[in-house]
Amino acid sequence: GFAQLDLSRGVRQGAGEVVYGAGKTAEQIAAIIEALRDAGQERILVTRLDSEKAARTSELLDNGIDLGYVPDAQLALVGGKPSPTGNGRIVVACAGTSDLPVAEEAALTAEFYGNEVDRLYDVGVAGLHRLLAHAEELARAQVVIAIAGMEGALASVIGGLVSCPVIAVPTSVGYGANFGGVAALLAMLNSCASGVSVVNIDNGFGAAYQASLINHLSAGTPRAR
Amino acid sequence: GFAQLDLSRGVRQGAGEVVYGAGKTAEQIAAIIEALRDAGQERILVTRLDSEKAARTSELLDNGIDLGYVPDAQLALVGGKPSPTGNGRIVVACAGTSDLPVAEEAALTAEFYGNEVDRLYDVGVAGLHRLLAHAEELARAQVVIAIAGMEGALASVIGGLVSCPVIAVPTSVGYGANFGGVAALLAMLNSCASGVSVVNIDNGFGAAYQASLINHLSAGTPRAR
Amino acid sequence: GFAQLDLSRGVRQGAGEVVYGAGKTAEQIAAIIEALRDAGQERILVTRLDSEKAARTSELLDNGIDLGYVPDAQLALVGGKPSPTGNGRIVVACAGTSDLPVAEEAALTAEFYGNEVDRLYDVGVAGLHRLLAHAEELARAQVVIAIAGMEGALASVIGGLVSCPVIAVPTSVGYGANFGGVAALLAMLNSCASGVSVVNIDNGFGAAYQASLINHLSAGTPRAR
Amino acid sequence: GFAQLDLSRGVRQGAGEVVYGAGKTAEQIAAIIEALRDAGQERILVTRLDSEKAARTSELLDNGIDLGYVPDAQLALVGGKPSPTGNGRIVVACAGTSDLPVAEEAALTAEFYGNEVDRLYDVGVAGLHRLLAHAEELARAQVVIAIAGMEGALASVIGGLVSCPVIAVPTSVGYGANFGGVAALLAMLNSCASGVSVVNIDNGFGAAYQASLINHLSAGTPRAR
Amino acid sequence: GFAQLDLSRGVRQGAGEVVYGAGKTAEQIAAIIEALRDAGQERILVTRLDSEKAARTSELLDNGIDLGYVPDAQLALVGGKPSPTGNGRIVVACAGTSDLPVAEEAALTAEFYGNEVDRLYDVGVAGLHRLLAHAEELARAQVVIAIAGMEGALASVIGGLVSCPVIAVPTSVGYGANFGGVAALLAMLNSCASGVSVVNIDNGFGAAYQASLINHLSAGTPRAR
Amino acid sequence: GFAQLDLSRGVRQGAGEVVYGAGKTAEQIAAIIEALRDAGQERILVTRLDSEKAARTSELLDNGIDLGYVPDAQLALVGGKPSPTGNGRIVVACAGTSDLPVAEEAALTAEFYGNEVDRLYDVGVAGLHRLLAHAEELARAQVVIAIAGMEGALASVIGGLVSCPVIAVPTSVGYGANFGGVAALLAMLNSCASGVSVVNIDNGFGAAYQASLINHLSAGTPRAR
Amino acid sequence: GFAQLDLSRGVRQGAGEVVYGAGKTAEQIAAIIEALRDAGQERILVTRLDSEKAARTSELLDNGIDLGYVPDAQLALVGGKPSPTGNGRIVVACAGTSDLPVAEEAALTAEFYGNEVDRLYDVGVAGLHRLLAHAEELARAQVVIAIAGMEGALASVIGGLVSCPVIAVPTSVGYGANFGGVAALLAMLNSCASGVSVVNIDNGFGAAYQASLINHLSAGTPRAR
Amino acid sequence: GFAQLDLSRGVRQGAGEVVYGAGKTAEQIAAIIEALRDAGQERILVTRLDSEKAARTSELLDNGIDLGYVPDAQLALVGGKPSPTGNGRIVVACAGTSDLPVAEEAALTAEFYGNEVDRLYDVGVAGLHRLLAHAEELARAQVVIAIAGMEGALASVIGGLVSCPVIAVPTSVGYGANFGGVAALLAMLNSCASGVSVVNIDNGFGAAYQASLINHLSAGTPRAR
Ligand SMILES: Nc1ncnc2c1ncn2[C@@H]1O[C@H](COP(=O)(O)O)[C@@H](O)[C@H]1O
Ligand SMILES: Nc1ncnc2c1ncn2[C@@H]1O[C@H](COP(=O)(O)O)[C@@H](O)[C@H]1O
Ligand SMILES: Nc1ncnc2c1ncn2[C@@H]1O[C@H](COP(=O)(O)O)[C@@H](O)[C@H]1O
Ligand SMILES: Nc1ncnc2c1ncn2[C@@H]1O[C@H](COP(=O)(O)O)[C@@H](O)[C@H]1O
Ligand SMILES: [Mg+2]
Ligand SMILES: [Mg+2]
Ligand SMILES: [Mg+2]
Ligand SMILES: [Mg+2]
Ligand SMILES: [Mg+2]
Ligand SMILES: [Mg+2]
Ligand SMILES: [Mg+2]
Ligand SMILES: [Mg+2]
Repeated sequence: GFAQLDLSRGVRQGAGEVVYGAGKTAEQIAAIIEALRDAGQERILVTRLDSEKAARTSELLDNGIDLGYVPDAQLALVGGKPSPTGNGRIVVACAGTSDLPVAEEAALTAEFYGNEVDRLYDVGVAGLHRLLAHAEELARAQVVIAIAGMEGALASVIGGLVSCPVIAVPTSVGYGANFGGVAALLAMLNSCASGVSVVNIDNGFGAAYQASLINHLSAGTPRAR
Repeated sequence: GFAQLDLSRGVRQGAGEVVYGAGKTAEQIAAIIEALRDAGQERILVTRLDSEKAARTSELLDNGIDLGYVPDAQLALVGGKPSPTGNGRIVVACAGTSDLPVAEEAALTAEFYGNEVDRLYDVGVAGLHRLLAHAEELARAQVVIAIAGMEGALASVIGGLVSCPVIAVPTSVGYGANFGGVAALLAMLNSCASGVSVVNIDNGFGAAYQASLINHLSAGTPRAR
Repeated sequence: GFAQLDLSRGVRQGAGEVVYGAGKTAEQIAAIIEALRDAGQERILVTRLDSEKAARTSELLDNGIDLGYVPDAQLALVGGKPSPTGNGRIVVACAGTSDLPVAEEAALTAEFYGNEVDRLYDVGVAGLHRLLAHAEELARAQVVIAIAGMEGALASVIGGLVSCPVIAVPTSVGYGANFGGVAALLAMLNSCASGVSVVNIDNGFGAAYQASLINHLSAGTPRAR
Repeated sequence: GFAQLDLSRGVRQGAGEVVYGAGKTAEQIAAIIEALRDAGQERILVTRLDSEKAARTSELLDNGIDLGYVPDAQLALVGGKPSPTGNGRIVVACAGTSDLPVAEEAALTAEFYGNEVDRLYDVGVAGLHRLLAHAEELARAQVVIAIAGMEGALASVIGGLVSCPVIAVPTSVGYGANFGGVAALLAMLNSCASGVSVVNIDNGFGAAYQASLINHLSAGTPRAR
Repeated sequence: GFAQLDLSRGVRQGAGEVVYGAGKTAEQIAAIIEALRDAGQERILVTRLDSEKAARTSELLDNGIDLGYVPDAQLALVGGKPSPTGNGRIVVACAGTSDLPVAEEAALTAEFYGNEVDRLYDVGVAGLHRLLAHAEELARAQVVIAIAGMEGALASVIGGLVSCPVIAVPTSVGYGANFGGVAALLAMLNSCASGVSVVNIDNGFGAAYQASLINHLSAGTPRAR
Repeated sequence: GFAQLDLSRGVRQGAGEVVYGAGKTAEQIAAIIEALRDAGQERILVTRLDSEKAARTSELLDNGIDLGYVPDAQLALVGGKPSPTGNGRIVVACAGTSDLPVAEEAALTAEFYGNEVDRLYDVGVAGLHRLLAHAEELARAQVVIAIAGMEGALASVIGGLVSCPVIAVPTSVGYGANFGGVAALLAMLNSCASGVSVVNIDNGFGAAYQASLINHLSAGTPRAR
Repeated sequence: GFAQLDLSRGVRQGAGEVVYGAGKTAEQIAAIIEALRDAGQERILVTRLDSEKAARTSELLDNGIDLGYVPDAQLALVGGKPSPTGNGRIVVACAGTSDLPVAEEAALTAEFYGNEVDRLYDVGVAGLHRLLAHAEELARAQVVIAIAGMEGALASVIGGLVSCPVIAVPTSVGYGANFGGVAALLAMLNSCASGVSVVNIDNGFGAAYQASLINHLSAGTPRAR
Repeated sequence: GFAQLDLSRGVRQGAGEVVYGAGKTAEQIAAIIEALRDAGQERILVTRLDSEKAARTSELLDNGIDLGYVPDAQLALVGGKPSPTGNGRIVVACAGTSDLPVAEEAALTAEFYGNEVDRLYDVGVAGLHRLLAHAEELARAQVVIAIAGMEGALASVIGGLVSCPVIAVPTSVGYGANFGGVAALLAMLNSCASGVSVVNIDNGFGAAYQASLINHLSAGTPRAR
């Protein structure tokens, strides 16, 4: 009774369902996973799952179901990743070591939805050569996900270098006048480079979800939802 | 000397250059238009141009150049629009009558970059039937641009109805606790529907620019910038 | 000495007194419950009571008093609920699973004050069909309490569907640019649907209290307080 | 084409349509009024209409239509007010002389929707006796609309005096740390009195609309919208 | 070396020194108390001292020094309180039970500086009769300290009842749109009653310090500091 | 009807009534002045009155009434100032030339209520010697009103120099991250000097009103209001 | 009497005095200029002076004094610029055409205080090649002043390229979620590049003043002020 | 893989590398230290390192490497400090005892980069004599780092006393309307003293890094980075 599962979505969109783990107990998560499996859903992504809750969920799961937990990204990939099906590749770029959890949430979500991903990590603008060294990966991307905390300048700099859409993810990395990611969020919304749009602070999942939609568009009418 | 024009961009991207009119005098705008024309740029978009400055710019232009000013959108389309070249259609949806200037900035920018546009105006969520009546246009879109002020709920509702990317544009329409568009901006950033990303308040241009990039993506490596 | 109980209010308003548990110790709460009981108050509602403090309060209570704690709603119903006395029914609708504690605070408060309640949970706007499936309950409501975190769009959508008053409760569910419920609060204050008013973030109690006043209004002069 | 009029609403709700004048030109407003009249709508409320635009709208209207402009409330009542039909009376109370335009917007809107209104003006809490002198009107109200700028304390004080619902309207009256009404808005959202809900800053219309819904509720199922 | 004690201040101002305990270790606090005692300071006030740190400080103090810790006010009164020396009485009024720690910080600070204090607790504006019952104490006050969280209306109501100065202390009591006391702070800064000034959120000490200065003013030139 | 004048206050408090001019028309102000005069009020202070409205009010007044307008302070002193009656002197200190209007509002208000005032202008902390040169005036003050925009440091520095109460007035002087006086307001609320309280941004009147109350306190019970 | 001129500062610091024109009338500015000239001050900088006030000031000045107004920078250089005396060169870099007024305020202020200035304008990060083309000027700078609105990324990128101090100036250029320069301000305060400090929004003067201090430092003890 | 070390920077800048410890595990920090040592880096600064993580890092380090942890400054100085090489001395001044951790982060960072440091601690403006007693150290500084929480007035007062650059560091010391350092940050950005620039809240490292750059500038072209 506590949740109205949208069991038909996975079927319609050719990909697995996703569970937002943050507001749920291990008991609730395990129950949802089992209900989805019973309904024929093979692959399930659980985001925002801390290590402790993951361990407890794992114990609660019926025999034979592997949670597939990835601590670095604080998520679980029940049933693993599918083979890539998109039109091209998605680049996930992040500014610093501390942005890694958000970057991995984005990268693994993209892979979960059937995309090939290039990871460019620790390429913040304080040392531009680190980013410029990856011109090739940037040039061949269908979409770039640009992830940065602090002043969030990475999105603007990448936006000026590529001609594909850039989805910017501000992170809560920083302190003081960073205000939990607001500084980066505002910077990205005000990007002087065109072609940049923004998702919520730390929302690696959302950026990857949209990037995957873009990378799977086909000419003509898209699939009905 | 006051501006470093990026004359090669139009050529590289197969489309015209865009001039941000807000911070410039009519004299500066006319000079830039002429310089771009002299450099072989056929079509030029000038955004954020009020009627008075547009009239003055028009007077200053050399004989034979028509400014192509559109008051409803506060922009000028020098050289007109090209034939559409994208993979599919872009839907521009807006919530109320007062969002019209931003919606037209988006729609005309999209057309300027070679896209076919479906306009769904005054379809705010206070009267859902108005939006639901357009299921067909929504279903065939490659990208939807969802424009709304006040509580900005339109983006979430559309995001739940379509399976293509949605670019949300908060507008500054409203008063009081609207804070010049902040209420809609925050709502859109927190959309519970996946597949929604956001641009700056009133930035119809930026949404359309990214929508056009998405609508022109081809499988494989995109054009270098 | 630490509190000036308003012992006559229950009598005047024909319903039990309510204790706000958040800023009080278990000792203070137990003492107040006993004082109210001694003063002839049969039913007492204690809100914002966490499980630990509830357990401790239970131990402290005199023999024969059952705290009636409901963990899901973080509240206690000493003396249980009365039979419903209102003019009609109150709908409590919430957007997602994580809004449940606030929704239950509202629903149980409404029942405590003598109202019949219809619960519509997990009916957020990202999947409109879930809400539209409940047209009947919405149509027969005297008041709707619309509860949502994230972008808070539920209040506007419901406001457009019903012709009775809607009391909106923003919740602190979300992260990043949600700012602890501010995004939903602003959205609700800016609702483009008429007939919507708003209470404080997570204030399920306050919404239900007002809803009950509305549901108990009789034509002519109301009871003096 | 610029607006999708909801012509059937007046019929369904037994009252006239309302036009939000702020974002519209005199030409647009006159056209909407005429279209509504042609569709059989007898009474039309136009809010947020400044004197200049009202004069221009009046000129544009066809012969025989009187705009019914009320400068103090910045609104027009085309077709006048109906006879009252509610269950009881609505009190509109405001704190100071400067809150008067919002108070009149509320009072006239309530009358437009068929309610009897008691006006208690300039009864702010800095001189409590002024409010306490009106105990009788307060006691017989079905709903109170409490309007105040500055620190917005009026809503809490009234909330503690009456046992009917209170709808609070913060106004933008004040300066400095008032932040255009935010101080009053926050005060009202945090009211320590139960039974108070809040609408947007300066939204006298919205408060009166909801108050009218409350005052017209009948026991049992309400009218479908 | 870590602190430059202002040993002469006590002498100049005829009262004891005060130590702000929040940012200091028990070791630092004990050392400062002993240094002040060695310098001849008889009475020392330590504010913002939690129970744990107080216990540890007590252990560290040399034999014969009693910390005089008051848990309800989170402060210590080394050497006790002096006999009152002010011109009249100070009223400390607070709105609710949860404001008690701030109220006691104010009351004890006032007593520490030689003032007679009347405590009016739990007299919030949601039940005005509780405040009005204390007209006598209010009328004879030299200064009133008005302490309230939530919407902070108490300061305005008292400001309208008395003709002596009112020092308002917003507290962080509340939740949601209270923003840790900001709602009450803004309300108090915008008080429509004249004669009200404001100190920082939860700053009972500061209010009492200024109240004491006021209560000790003598006609003519005050003591040099 | 538009205002409920508190005609007895002047009598009770031994001083004239004050009219807040900002939200009123010249017609309203003139009518209030005449009503107060008719009721026997000799002196009337009108604050927040711009030059244009003052001229118009002057014309509207009956023969024989001189408005007594002071443009530098944007206020009018109908009936002039009384002889000083306070216990001592009030110092009005301001940081810079641009704070002058607020400083004069404070100084003239203090004089209107019967206080002797010492003006220390342009004594901001960027040139400390300017302030230190006035040690004598500061030492003999009963109250100091410290007025500053920008970073508002003057209140803290004065608070550390005097032993009488300091009432701080932040002004809206400054730009950028000053946010219309918020920077100074926050600085003053966080003053590390004890004995400082704060009024609203630009509220010279309020500071002077409270300063006058302080300067007129007599030992024992104050006058009832 | 309205201002306490610091006539000795020019002498002590070997440079002219500066007048902040924003809060002053043309009459006050002309009077100050003449007083400073009479006191032997040869060069005077007047900042924040709009064209209209400049014209009026010019008329008011005694014969023989040329105001030296520069409209692009909204400032006046009475007495012209001295020969450069600093240790090296100051680079003034700005992101876009609209930042020009702030950039010129900085550049001319630096020249007024005896510095050689290299101007790098319209070198924003959306087109990195424009900045990288100026590696030489950047490499030889003693200080760089980095000026940008919108997302303010320029400061971080320059901070990563140079090894001299960078003073960042956020500008109010932009719209929507730019909040009048706050986005750029926060970005600059959170710069991931070390060696960057920040001044107030649009404060070109302040940045140049500090840059000049740095460029004039000599080994050993600096001049006393 | 998780970090791209900038191994050549130490060499280019003649000083050691710095590791930001806050977002890293002890394992990551130990690995970076060893990699830097292996690459020939003799001295390494690790900032934002709490005692627990420091202890764990110490254990993980290879034999022979001493972490050099300084708990008061929450940093580690692997390899110790070099001999001073700057042009003059840097003054680190802080307002109160609670600012000490930030002050020591600044002082030790400055020493790590080869500067002589004068520490002036607990010299806040509430007792000006404490600061004025250090006129000599202030007069001979090449740069002053002014560190303060609460109202942050120290930077303005020092800015008015010295003629060298002042770098201001707001700290998060305070409560209530301090907002975690925002009050001090705004005050410092609005300093009425010229020559003051600001770094992020609590960023002692950043201020010292820039101060060191300034103190090492030589006439003519600086070192390339
Ligand atoms: N990390 C995340 N951030 C934002 N939204 C998410 C995240 N993970 C899942 N979601 C969304 O949450 C929905 C599931 O929510 P629920 O039904 O509460 O589990 C999914 O369909 C996604 O749209
Ligand atoms: N309405 C707009 N909102 C945001 N960015 C814009 C807008 N119009 C143009 N731009 C951007 O501004 C650039 C031109 O700026 P400028 O060189 O200042 O004319 C274009 O390349 C666009 O990226
Ligand atoms: N003053 C007002 N404040 C808020 N909402 C209003 C106001 N006046 C009218 N409305 C709403 O605006 C709707 C009409 O909007 P529109 O179709 O844009 O004219 C009405 O149905 C009302 O719900
Ligand atoms: N306490 C600090 N505050 C701000 N930035 C710092 C701090 N400590 C180190 N940094 C910067 O962080 C960089 C190292 O970051 P990382 O590579 O993540 O260790 C250094 O080069 C410094 O520029
Ligand atoms: Mg790094
Ligand atoms: Mg409409
Ligand atoms: Mg769900
Ligand atoms: Mg009044
Ligand atoms: Mg109570
Ligand atoms: Mg001055
Ligand atoms: Mg440009
Ligand atoms: Mg100290």
